[in-house]
Amino acid sequence: QTFKIASIPGDGIGTEITEAAIQVLDKLAAVDGSFKFDYTHFDWSSKAYKERGWYMPPDGMDQLQKHDAIYFGAVGWPDVPDHISLWNLILPIRKNMNQYVNVRPTRILPGTKSPLESCQADPSTLDWIIIRENSEGEYAGQGGTTHENSPHTIATELAIFSRVGIERIMRYAFETARSRERKKLTMVTKSNAQRHGMVLWDKVFYEVAEDYPDVQHDKMLVDAMTVRMVNNPASMDTIVATNLHADILSDLAAALSGSIGIAPSSNLDPTRKHPSMFEPIHGSAPDIAGKGVANPVGAFWSAAEMVRWLGQGKLDGTADKLMQAIENVTKAGVKTKDLAGNSNTKEVTEAVCREIETV
Amino acid sequence: QTFKIASIPGDGIGTEITEAAIQVLDKLAAVDGSFKFDYTHFDWSSKAYKERGWYMPPDGMDQLQKHDAIYFGAVGWPDVPDHISLWNLILPIRKNMNQYVNVRPTRILPGTKSPLESCQADPSTLDWIIIRENSEGEYAGQGGTTHENSPHTIATELAIFSRVGIERIMRYAFETARSRERKKLTMVTKSNAQRHGMVLWDKVFYEVAEDYPDVQHDKMLVDAMTVRMVNNPASMDTIVATNLHADILSDLAAALSGSIGIAPSSNLDPTRKHPSMFEPIHGSAPDIAGKGVANPVGAFWSAAEMVRWLGQGKLDGTADKLMQAIENVTKAGVKTKDLAGNSNTKEVTEAVCREIETV
Ligand SMILES: CC(C)[C@H](C(=O)O)[C@@H](O)C(=O)O
Ligand SMILES: CC(C)[C@H](C(=O)O)[C@@H](O)C(=O)O
Repeated sequence: QTFKIASIPGDGIGTEITEAAIQVLDKLAAVDGSFKFDYTHFDWSSKAYKERGWYMPPDGMDQLQKHDAIYFGAVGWPDVPDHISLWNLILPIRKNMNQYVNVRPTRILPGTKSPLESCQADPSTLDWIIIRENSEGEYAGQGGTTHENSPHTIATELAIFSRVGIERIMRYAFETARSRERKKLTMVTKSNAQRHGMVLWDKVFYEVAEDYPDVQHDKMLVDAMTVRMVNNPASMDTIVATNLHADILSDLAAALSGSIGIAPSSNLDPTRKHPSMFEPIHGSAPDIAGKGVANPVGAFWSAAEMVRWLGQGKLDGTADKLMQAIENVTKAGVKTKDLAGNSNTKEVTEAVCREIETV
Repeated sequence: QTFKIASIPGDGIGTEITEAAIQVLDKLAAVDGSFKFDYTHFDWSSKAYKERGWYMPPDGMDQLQKHDAIYFGAVGWPDVPDHISLWNLILPIRKNMNQYVNVRPTRILPGTKSPLESCQADPSTLDWIIIRENSEGEYAGQGGTTHENSPHTIATELAIFSRVGIERIMRYAFETARSRERKKLTMVTKSNAQRHGMVLWDKVFYEVAEDYPDVQHDKMLVDAMTVRMVNNPASMDTIVATNLHADILSDLAAALSGSIGIAPSSNLDPTRKHPSMFEPIHGSAPDIAGKGVANPVGAFWSAAEMVRWLGQGKLDGTADKLMQAIENVTKAGVKTKDLAGNSNTKEVTEAVCREIETV
């Protein structure tokens, strides 16, 4: 079986960690023997944009549609305003490919440590999976500017929440919670200050909860949620939040688990009509780009999730093997600087490839 | 000199900590001798709302306007939907009283500790002041619902940013940064995903920065900001952010500094045409309300800021005295449970009153 992968390395360390991830994916396929990957590489980047004036060509979505999955590095570079790069590449893909679920697991890997004192004794106290609404809300893309270049300029951002959009993400979140040992879902909102979309979000949550009597559920305000994440990590398991809230909380979660460099994400179209997209949650990191020192763990973990998704239940063992290889490597202390190690990208990648052969 | 204070204890522990704060304020005035407080107590609470159907009477704002400052406890109670309580009390006050600045200082008090391992050796590494835009943005109060009670419901939240609103908060933030030793301002935004209001926010920041060449400034995306707060607290000093972003970041800041129970806030009308409002940032805490165990430190710190504001430079020593009293008490280990102590509200209050007499 051949999986067709659209690879979009993008900018900065995105290109470095995508290369590393492909090496690891190919090793995994070779060891497994039952499948292989066929990549199409797309040079859709800020560098290309500066040269030719566009990120994706007009038929970009059609090209992506011919693949089984998309592997994404990172986008964003100082010489292009961020809202231009993102709205010409990553955000349209999430939307056009109907990737309405963004899954962001967080835990403390062996051999690494949380900045929280309370997690030192037992790292398993922090084990979350954040389900992010990925298609609407604060990222709906609407809003505008009036009286531009005047002292009276007014600019707006319009967050749009639909019952359909909320209900599908809530169901996905309850299903995820149900599939995990603790069967516990925490829903995040800001319905005290935001009286329309956020109140609908709450309402649909409680409605959907009735279909999942076996899942314990509770509600948090987004500000108080950050406090709970810091003070009581063990009290949470699965978390569901809006596009913006989950964006913020998943970065915080990654930091609390040790480093943003390890955190993976899966942008899923659960209907499987479009390819899903897998990407580490870190950015292009201009400060360390080109030095070969980026942490590839978030990229590998994202690759493991891609294998799991593509396998539809049949490659879980293979995905687990990759996760085990990653964990053996961090445990052995082969780690980049962000994890208090002194290995570079290549060393970590080679160590993971070696582990794949033996685990 | 008599300062007329409108006291709104509100709900839950709000009533307990307001009582404690008034005790401390009166003690401070007595020891100082140059001023006293004259309070009007308003029973604007969720309990009253349940009984009579309203929080504030129609002339509520006029009544507040007759005071020099407002002291606020907390609002919100499980039997009233949060968006009803907040939009009938705290949010209209912030808006009608033109309190467009919300100041939220955070540091680790003596005798208390941060949950971050990296702050253990030197607690002074975490010393921030968050300047929150308090009048518009995500709390503009607009938005609505279409197709209510239908499977196709659409609900929106409209964030509104005005050049006037952004410019005044940026100036306040730069002035604050300039007044502090490190002269450093970090501006938070999400202008990569939100292309209108957030882009204007960025633009005005850089324009205003030109008037403050002596203040070092940088820009962070709100998600990455949480990572920096966890990983590198010493790299920041003054922070400016939108209404929602600063709401989230200030709760996180409080948690990282030891407890949400110590965090103060000042809702300021810098034009002084309306009374400013002082309140701890914690909520009504239904879980511990009525037990006499709430941490009054956030309330005392807010009271110190009120004295400073009312004094217009002439009572800074008195405000400092209250801060010193608080710090002596935490240092001596007279602390509530959230700070790993075993004192109750009354014990902490009495200890602070005693210190005021001697410091
Ligand atoms: C790059 C940016 C648009 C993105 C987001 O805000 O969604 C990133 O922060 C993420 O979390 O994937
Ligand atoms: C009570 C609520 C409206 C408030 C806010 O969101 O502003 C609170 O969280 C705060 O931080 O003061």
